[in-house]
Amino acid sequence: MNTFEDLGYCKVDVQRESRTGFPEVIFGQGKTVAQIAGIFDRLLSHHGKAMVTRLGPGKAAQVMAAFPEARYDAGARILCQGGAKARFAGEVMVLCAGTSDLPVAEEAALTAEWMGCRVRRRYDVGVAGIDRLLAYRDEIARASVLIVVAGMEGALPSVVGGLTGSPVIAVPTSVGYGAHFQGVTPLLTMLTSCAAGVSVVNIDNGFGAAYQAAQIMRLVNEGAPHAAALS
Amino acid sequence: MNTFEDLGYCKVDVQRESRTGFPEVIFGQGKTVAQIAGIFDRLLSHHGKAMVTRLGPGKAAQVMAAFPEARYDAGARILCQGGAKARFAGEVMVLCAGTSDLPVAEEAALTAEWMGCRVRRRYDVGVAGIDRLLAYRDEIARASVLIVVAGMEGALPSVVGGLTGSPVIAVPTSVGYGAHFQGVTPLLTMLTSCAAGVSVVNIDNGFGAAYQAAQIMRLVNEGAPHAAALS
Amino acid sequence: MNTFEDLGYCKVDVQRESRTGFPEVIFGQGKTVAQIAGIFDRLLSHHGKAMVTRLGPGKAAQVMAAFPEARYDAGARILCQGGAKARFAGEVMVLCAGTSDLPVAEEAALTAEWMGCRVRRRYDVGVAGIDRLLAYRDEIARASVLIVVAGMEGALPSVVGGLTGSPVIAVPTSVGYGAHFQGVTPLLTMLTSCAAGVSVVNIDNGFGAAYQAAQIMRLVNEGAPHAAALS
Amino acid sequence: MNTFEDLGYCKVDVQRESRTGFPEVIFGQGKTVAQIAGIFDRLLSHHGKAMVTRLGPGKAAQVMAAFPEARYDAGARILCQGGAKARFAGEVMVLCAGTSDLPVAEEAALTAEWMGCRVRRRYDVGVAGIDRLLAYRDEIARASVLIVVAGMEGALPSVVGGLTGSPVIAVPTSVGYGAHFQGVTPLLTMLTSCAAGVSVVNIDNGFGAAYQAAQIMRLVNEGAPHAAALS
Amino acid sequence: MNTFEDLGYCKVDVQRESRTGFPEVIFGQGKTVAQIAGIFDRLLSHHGKAMVTRLGPGKAAQVMAAFPEARYDAGARILCQGGAKARFAGEVMVLCAGTSDLPVAEEAALTAEWMGCRVRRRYDVGVAGIDRLLAYRDEIARASVLIVVAGMEGALPSVVGGLTGSPVIAVPTSVGYGAHFQGVTPLLTMLTSCAAGVSVVNIDNGFGAAYQAAQIMRLVNEGAPHAAALS
Amino acid sequence: MNTFEDLGYCKVDVQRESRTGFPEVIFGQGKTVAQIAGIFDRLLSHHGKAMVTRLGPGKAAQVMAAFPEARYDAGARILCQGGAKARFAGEVMVLCAGTSDLPVAEEAALTAEWMGCRVRRRYDVGVAGIDRLLAYRDEIARASVLIVVAGMEGALPSVVGGLTGSPVIAVPTSVGYGAHFQGVTPLLTMLTSCAAGVSVVNIDNGFGAAYQAAQIMRLVNEGAPHAAALS
Amino acid sequence: MNTFEDLGYCKVDVQRESRTGFPEVIFGQGKTVAQIAGIFDRLLSHHGKAMVTRLGPGKAAQVMAAFPEARYDAGARILCQGGAKARFAGEVMVLCAGTSDLPVAEEAALTAEWMGCRVRRRYDVGVAGIDRLLAYRDEIARASVLIVVAGMEGALPSVVGGLTGSPVIAVPTSVGYGAHFQGVTPLLTMLTSCAAGVSVVNIDNGFGAAYQAAQIMRLVNEGAPHAAALS
Amino acid sequence: MNTFEDLGYCKVDVQRESRTGFPEVIFGQGKTVAQIAGIFDRLLSHHGKAMVTRLGPGKAAQVMAAFPEARYDAGARILCQGGAKARFAGEVMVLCAGTSDLPVAEEAALTAEWMGCRVRRRYDVGVAGIDRLLAYRDEIARASVLIVVAGMEGALPSVVGGLTGSPVIAVPTSVGYGAHFQGVTPLLTMLTSCAAGVSVVNIDNGFGAAYQAAQIMRLVNEGAPHAAALS
Repeated sequence: MNTFEDLGYCKVDVQRESRTGFPEVIFGQGKTVAQIAGIFDRLLSHHGKAMVTRLGPGKAAQVMAAFPEARYDAGARILCQGGAKARFAGEVMVLCAGTSDLPVAEEAALTAEWMGCRVRRRYDVGVAGIDRLLAYRDEIARASVLIVVAGMEGALPSVVGGLTGSPVIAVPTSVGYGAHFQGVTPLLTMLTSCAAGVSVVNIDNGFGAAYQAAQIMRLVNEGAPHAAALS
Repeated sequence: MNTFEDLGYCKVDVQRESRTGFPEVIFGQGKTVAQIAGIFDRLLSHHGKAMVTRLGPGKAAQVMAAFPEARYDAGARILCQGGAKARFAGEVMVLCAGTSDLPVAEEAALTAEWMGCRVRRRYDVGVAGIDRLLAYRDEIARASVLIVVAGMEGALPSVVGGLTGSPVIAVPTSVGYGAHFQGVTPLLTMLTSCAAGVSVVNIDNGFGAAYQAAQIMRLVNEGAPHAAALS
Repeated sequence: MNTFEDLGYCKVDVQRESRTGFPEVIFGQGKTVAQIAGIFDRLLSHHGKAMVTRLGPGKAAQVMAAFPEARYDAGARILCQGGAKARFAGEVMVLCAGTSDLPVAEEAALTAEWMGCRVRRRYDVGVAGIDRLLAYRDEIARASVLIVVAGMEGALPSVVGGLTGSPVIAVPTSVGYGAHFQGVTPLLTMLTSCAAGVSVVNIDNGFGAAYQAAQIMRLVNEGAPHAAALS
Repeated sequence: MNTFEDLGYCKVDVQRESRTGFPEVIFGQGKTVAQIAGIFDRLLSHHGKAMVTRLGPGKAAQVMAAFPEARYDAGARILCQGGAKARFAGEVMVLCAGTSDLPVAEEAALTAEWMGCRVRRRYDVGVAGIDRLLAYRDEIARASVLIVVAGMEGALPSVVGGLTGSPVIAVPTSVGYGAHFQGVTPLLTMLTSCAAGVSVVNIDNGFGAAYQAAQIMRLVNEGAPHAAALS
Repeated sequence: MNTFEDLGYCKVDVQRESRTGFPEVIFGQGKTVAQIAGIFDRLLSHHGKAMVTRLGPGKAAQVMAAFPEARYDAGARILCQGGAKARFAGEVMVLCAGTSDLPVAEEAALTAEWMGCRVRRRYDVGVAGIDRLLAYRDEIARASVLIVVAGMEGALPSVVGGLTGSPVIAVPTSVGYGAHFQGVTPLLTMLTSCAAGVSVVNIDNGFGAAYQAAQIMRLVNEGAPHAAALS
Repeated sequence: MNTFEDLGYCKVDVQRESRTGFPEVIFGQGKTVAQIAGIFDRLLSHHGKAMVTRLGPGKAAQVMAAFPEARYDAGARILCQGGAKARFAGEVMVLCAGTSDLPVAEEAALTAEWMGCRVRRRYDVGVAGIDRLLAYRDEIARASVLIVVAGMEGALPSVVGGLTGSPVIAVPTSVGYGAHFQGVTPLLTMLTSCAAGVSVVNIDNGFGAAYQAAQIMRLVNEGAPHAAALS
Repeated sequence: MNTFEDLGYCKVDVQRESRTGFPEVIFGQGKTVAQIAGIFDRLLSHHGKAMVTRLGPGKAAQVMAAFPEARYDAGARILCQGGAKARFAGEVMVLCAGTSDLPVAEEAALTAEWMGCRVRRRYDVGVAGIDRLLAYRDEIARASVLIVVAGMEGALPSVVGGLTGSPVIAVPTSVGYGAHFQGVTPLLTMLTSCAAGVSVVNIDNGFGAAYQAAQIMRLVNEGAPHAAALS
Repeated sequence: MNTFEDLGYCKVDVQRESRTGFPEVIFGQGKTVAQIAGIFDRLLSHHGKAMVTRLGPGKAAQVMAAFPEARYDAGARILCQGGAKARFAGEVMVLCAGTSDLPVAEEAALTAEWMGCRVRRRYDVGVAGIDRLLAYRDEIARASVLIVVAGMEGALPSVVGGLTGSPVIAVPTSVGYGAHFQGVTPLLTMLTSCAAGVSVVNIDNGFGAAYQAAQIMRLVNEGAPHAAALS
């Protein structure tokens, strides 16, 4: 039996959910509307749910013409249908540093929710007004996983990392100018953070951070797998 | 009551274990032997255990003169004393791509063990001989968290990410030459991985990867915190 | 006798086919329609065939008005007329990692075919779902030359390089975002590949990869030249 | 009358004190002992004080053989003799993020003192343990100028900038590894800080930060110059 | 009592003026018109004045529809209402190297004026015609703070720094081409200036330079704060 | 049956010769003497021949103590024993631009010979004295594969590529200074070559170029594989 | 008497011709039409000639409405009026590597002519077809100054530099893609050229190269200045 | 007749003097003592003079053992014997910004003298003390060619370029630290200089600047070649 369905331009990985717990998600950028719709259709028929990321409003409208039940969020540029059947216990907290980081934060929040997480959003809590962040110190300490989104200099994950014992997944954004280099600066900041327990995903990759957060929440809810005997 | 102990050159964060679950670890690079020994002494007296990373053999010998019970691993450049009282259920798997990546892989493995994780090591399983990796496909699928260490082009996490539903923490190493730029190339490779569920830490930062892995294992073993009511 | 024909803005290298086995190909980017048509005309008249790469649809339509027998492929951005008289024995395999890499893969495939190669296409076989690639393991082992096209982190050539004893020519693409830097990341990945036998061409340069593949196929079909006596 | 004294290899700017308020300081790196001693001698004879920065212990010992009254600080790599006659009212606060940043912080502190400033040092107050910094919130609010020194991700100036209405001069240090790039990362972090009122100097340039701090303190103590009539 | 007002998408820092002497300023880039208008309204009501930077003419017109008393400068891309009640004694001098640097210079000049500074403008005084700059040597020597704006190679601050004892805040601009890299070259030039007393802000950040200049002018006019007792 | 032999620190790929035509080669950099000797021993016993690249003279002497029949070339930093049983018909030509590029050129030449190629060396034929290169124009036209090694600006492959119809594999070297960036400049030069049919390997990677050259020569000598039926 | 005329937004350097031999030229990029026209008018009235570089066709048409005698070249983006009264003896040769480099080559050629040089143009003589270049070997050897314009890998100046004893001024262009980085690659190539006697100007800076060529031709025609006595 | 003499490791270009006016010069870096001595010997015998650049004192002593009449300058790292028979009329002026730039300035000065130029040295005239430079304004205006050497921010050529009508050749040096990047910053500064008539050579390439200066002086002294008839 084959593990994928071959559309010629795409080999749909129909066993990914059984193999990894979550179905394939469509990366919308650089694909034609016909390609997206084709893959969306196959994923829906296999899993009863499907999601597309990085999809602009023009293409989204065309795809939705064929899938009237799909929902589209223009800020997060996510189109999806269906979703997780149940919610994991525990909470994923999504923080962002500035108002301009909202689209990326929402990409993370919507993805995490679609994958079955409860999400707590706290936005515009950048470190230059530290009291805004400290007002949520208690919530930060009680979150299971924290997704911390920041553009400009990207300092927020370092401070959050020191306020929690839970894993922090940092997301640099392309919000800034000049020596910010479309997000390279906060990316480097986060990679060199003096706070232990911070890992990093690509610039503007709210989706990726949410994906790993959901993996962790699934693990926490289902327990560690029974490991193979150590040879 | 103060949250830190002030040594002048250092403010030891003595409440970090109660705040985040794990005590402060000493970053050895750029500190004098006297500074390291001073902080090591304070951490030992507060927590009954202490660890120093990035410590060369010369300095290590000097520090050990004062702490004869400490253990030193020259490959991983870690000096430590004491450790976690119990082991978390579940397994952290540490994979590395080539023989030359061993020191970083061992930094990760020893740190994870010191923090209470069970560790499964599989080394030299780089993607250019894919059968070496696929021989462990079953083990990969059953690990709770995977730390994937790779120099050269850093492709290993992308393949591993497709074989597991558990979180993958990727560690680029400085092993390589030319267009490898002391680890920048595998760092970029890992950040742009087409596999979802991969997050990344700094070049050669086996410690950081292990730290987040231990945070996840603690969460899995202790369960999600009881979240604050959502305002 | 002159080795080139001088159009003022261009010196057409009319002896290249006799010197190197293949005629000059027009690099369309940055040239005006009049310049392209002028050179196309001269090449056609000398060789009975001509090809233009990197040509957008607008310009292509204008050029085709003058050359109604020319064919244009909008995805690959190639316009050509005529082609090789015979096909080389053996097979060039063109693989690409994702659906979005198709245009570059097609630039390679069409160029190779125009130059006389038989081409086998296998698309969307990226390493994050390794079973998709392994499904073609037998074909990979029997190809004469492999052109491996990949954006994102560009890991595919490293895996393919370990599955074949034939030369692999890797083509990074500009498909990606953030720390991908318009193709710089897969370029670096491919240059530092741990698989021996992988060489690399410029970002999005499907043409260049196909050109070298055709050179190899010609050599295989015509045999090694009779070398000069070694002084 | 000439504004400089010509030593051939150096033109000593003997009027700089009268023109700018402070005498020339010798940048020790890349100069021979003979050159340093020669310039030091001329500055001493003109101003009754002299300072050399970036001077290693070996060269320092040689220079001090000729100037027995000079003082040398090996951490800060500063050699000086004499100093300001009076202290400015108000306070320059020097903060640093980690123990390893001390040499640069001391370069700043000693320079500022030599130029006539009162200096308050608070070291190892990095943002990953934010309570260490907040313990000095009151002092921060009352400093006239703040020099904030940080390696690793360089986030400290952004937090400090939000706690004060006084100018913050940020100094990135070369303390870090991997994606830190010998200080480039904290440099970029500081340049893109979301806190207004932060300006930046070169990596490890504690001297430059102190110099501008002293200029500000002089201005505060002497009052704004009587401006020329606006044409 | 809370230190900020929560608009959901933004937490307005209403205590910043009492904490730092100046109210929050809105960074217009990446915010929607509704968000800008919402924050502008809250700032106006708290402080009686408000300012937005990096605001294009299209958005500005929409915001002004709701705030008819606001003023907009299209060159500097600043929209503001109200301003400082009094002018500080002393003078901020704004110099720029070329005609093309005017927009950034005006961003600095207008910001400084809005914050209460007297501003002297001297534009197009780049170093390749040094006599243009030297014609203002006397004015330069008498300014309290100098903001020096330059694109191209950014050499102007080095020369100005040698003509004054007052602090120089350098602003690189994105005016240039080729190896200028959108302002990176003058940024690096200014960071490595051989003139002491020069600090630097981000590319095109006229606002940031003016903000620090105003902080210094406030300090000069109000005197150094009464420092805490040194523990 | 397993495809590799597990030494713990290394999984020796003992089937690579049957799978790809050539046995595994040991990358010496970053491995201990014990590791190198261990792998060398296993490869020798499986294939009757073995090779180590990037091996300094100190380590080489230690390894040779255990393998007295091994040969070591200090310039090329290659240690090997045994070699190909027969020579391929046709010729690999190795050209280098300057005298300082010799070590890399020799790494390529010796590797190609060990793998069964006939090699023609032409060194110090850089383009600034074009007559030196043109003196070998005839030989260039008759070579089967050309390995072109160049540091400095790396222009040689572009000229050679225009003189031959055979594949050119370009090797940038780290010979140069300043804006050469340890080989990055010739690497970029070669990637952007205006000559079609040029592919590139990593900086100083003479081994990799020779490996692909030998793959091509094997293909030319053995003929194209019988391809699978095209589905 | 003043050395410049102050227009507020610009200080026109009216003495430059007497000081340096050639009048100021207007850099059109980033200036408004009104500013350009204002400066053009002043230069015309002082020198009887004026030139604007980097001027797009839209702005050019507006400027020409006020200066009907001005000439505009859309390829070179130069607008000028008047010119040198006499031609220097000797010849400036302008070579370019490819058809796409013509606009930059023409910027150089027109500037040199406007400044009084005789210009010989040889275009599309890139090194991948070396015979095209060698056809002009005799002309190259007899030119007084050579301006060599090249995009892609920028190898042409290295070859030309070896064919002449006259100074070569190299101009990299932004023609290329991928690892060409908008001209950075040929810039680096030219800076690291193995041919002595090659100097380099900024990417696409045909104007700058021509300016220096004209300075040299003036020197050759007028003879070396009578130097000051050596002190 | 051959145009070069083949030493195997080197093809000595014995016709370069007749072709370009000056003999080949040996680039010492990366060559063995035996290679250098061998080439030196051949050049001496052909031209009666020879020069080696970038030669450290250890190797120099070994080479001089065989050539007792050779002279060595340790600062400039130049070894030479013989020299130009006559001096060109006119003057090459070598300026440098700081004392630490002397070795590069001397490399330029000694090379120019060896090639037949008269040289005027003015050192330590950096722009932060502009009066030091302006003291030589008259000399600058009368020099035939100016070589301007500067590390740090590299601003000096921009100012000098505005004071002369003669060509300025700028040489960035590796003197600096932090954001200076071993000379990249002054290199970029010089390439983007707002002064027309400035061309640039590689970092620390005093030799290259002097070589072009000598070419110009030869041209000025010998007059423009009689150009070929323009076809």
